[in-house]
Amino acid sequence: MTTSIPIALGPEPDELLADAVARGGGRIVDLAEAEALVWAGDDTTRFPGELPASIRWVQLHSAGVEHWFDAGVIQRHPDLLWTSAAGAFSASVAEHAFALLLAGVRALPEHLAATTWRQKEFFDKVGTLRGARVAIIGAGGIGRTMIPMLTAVGATVIAVNRSGREVPGADEVVTADRVDEVFGRVDHVVIAAPSTSDTQHLVGAPQLAKLGPRSWVINVARGPLVDTDAVVDALRDNRIGGVGLDVTDPEPLPDGHPLWTLPNAIITPHDSNPPSVRLSAFADHVAENVRRFVAGEELAARIDPAAGY
Amino acid sequence: MTTSIPIALGPEPDELLADAVARGGGRIVDLAEAEALVWAGDDTTRFPGELPASIRWVQLHSAGVEHWFDAGVIQRHPDLLWTSAAGAFSASVAEHAFALLLAGVRALPEHLAATTWRQKEFFDKVGTLRGARVAIIGAGGIGRTMIPMLTAVGATVIAVNRSGREVPGADEVVTADRVDEVFGRVDHVVIAAPSTSDTQHLVGAPQLAKLGPRSWVINVARGPLVDTDAVVDALRDNRIGGVGLDVTDPEPLPDGHPLWTLPNAIITPHDSNPPSVRLSAFADHVAENVRRFVAGEELAARIDPAAGY
Repeated sequence: MTTSIPIALGPEPDELLADAVARGGGRIVDLAEAEALVWAGDDTTRFPGELPASIRWVQLHSAGVEHWFDAGVIQRHPDLLWTSAAGAFSASVAEHAFALLLAGVRALPEHLAATTWRQKEFFDKVGTLRGARVAIIGAGGIGRTMIPMLTAVGATVIAVNRSGREVPGADEVVTADRVDEVFGRVDHVVIAAPSTSDTQHLVGAPQLAKLGPRSWVINVARGPLVDTDAVVDALRDNRIGGVGLDVTDPEPLPDGHPLWTLPNAIITPHDSNPPSVRLSAFADHVAENVRRFVAGEELAARIDPAAGY
Repeated sequence: MTTSIPIALGPEPDELLADAVARGGGRIVDLAEAEALVWAGDDTTRFPGELPASIRWVQLHSAGVEHWFDAGVIQRHPDLLWTSAAGAFSASVAEHAFALLLAGVRALPEHLAATTWRQKEFFDKVGTLRGARVAIIGAGGIGRTMIPMLTAVGATVIAVNRSGREVPGADEVVTADRVDEVFGRVDHVVIAAPSTSDTQHLVGAPQLAKLGPRSWVINVARGPLVDTDAVVDALRDNRIGGVGLDVTDPEPLPDGHPLWTLPNAIITPHDSNPPSVRLSAFADHVAENVRRFVAGEELAARIDPAAGY
């Protein structure tokens, strides 16, 4: 029999997280008796100034932990195991990107605008992802999580990453310096790459020109990766099928912007990872890390106190 | 080395099908020299009155073959292997149902109606299929094909069928006589059952009352399985999340019907299996059956000339 590990929750009691701890094989105790602390708050000033000597591991709540380093909290306890929530939220963003693409390919925006039965017309508009080739630009957590979704509906994936390292489930991997070639070889493009000076306007007029009139471009990364004006032009001329944008440039997208009313633009206001979904995703992450802690396995999303991330 | 099998195409040459035959390990020849005939036409009067003695197998083009029996074509050659396209078109309908459900859960209809950035409001509307429980009522070809799509995004499936026989990938199977219980235990419902007197208004006011305000109901089977008036009432009172209907009752849905303009009704005019997608799906079916024919395996979608289906 495995002994259940005593774990404290902060800053407040939380039923969902208490359940997650139990699922993972832990039991909730007061901080003074705990071996681990799951801290679900973002306010670094509320974090305990002192931790009992029994604590060996602290699980934080956010994917990025710069503010915890800025506040000096992690550095105060460099010998503990620290973990973030990095990767925990990829699934929701990936599902959102997939929903945007599938809605586009199945012509749902035009269906929703229709107020009369026009079957013959829609026969020519409804497409399929079965047999389609989809580029995923930026094959990190979000991109990788999308691959099984795409293959489940029969699409194949070309992954673009910096290293050219193999990506599980992708048919092919292309290095980022050759990303432009990819646009001429795929049906649809999903942007899930980090925003850097290299990736700004990764999708501009020249790249859009290589896509076809039924191609959809999905962006769930950062607005500036896509040249908004070039997208508006391409949509107006029906040179691409459509766009699904959870992020825009500028963001928020101002009232009256053409993207609000162009028929094949689906705009979602950076809500692919809403708080309600975050909570349960974080709970799943906690359950998995508790399980690993109990089993003595390597924890997910380890923070390196010396490196600062 | 496998010998390639001589196969004829009718009524016209067709590049896509010729390619499919080649993919399966066949080669295209004239009917007189063929061992199999792939017939891509629906007009029974054009079918050859006599078939050469070398023919052992005929692949027809449609899922239902009543008209071929009515015309007496199959009965004239009871000793041949006959196959239909049954099952070939399930994937497109399953993908469509999945697109409708995912679009609903991610609040895409409301997003598409928005013309201003309302992130906070949408945070409460965007849901996830991760961890959701989905009932698939009628676990035949379409329902079964949907299961890997749903599990790829982290949903679990309760399948409802007549026999209660195990369904691969489903968490649980419930027999059709207990279908009403299922509505109280799931987040969403997909209807993919045959239309019979038993299944009429399978989803009516009592069943809708068991669903929640974020539940979506998807129908890709036949219109009469869902009580349209009850759905309109439930949508008007926000008692369910929404409906995605590829089939309606009445069908076509008349102009001015409330479902055209209710915000969370996605209506697609029975176009989940459009001709362009049918063609490539049939080609894949042909390639697979040619492969099986070459390998001496059991063919998919065998017709029983004696039974008449």
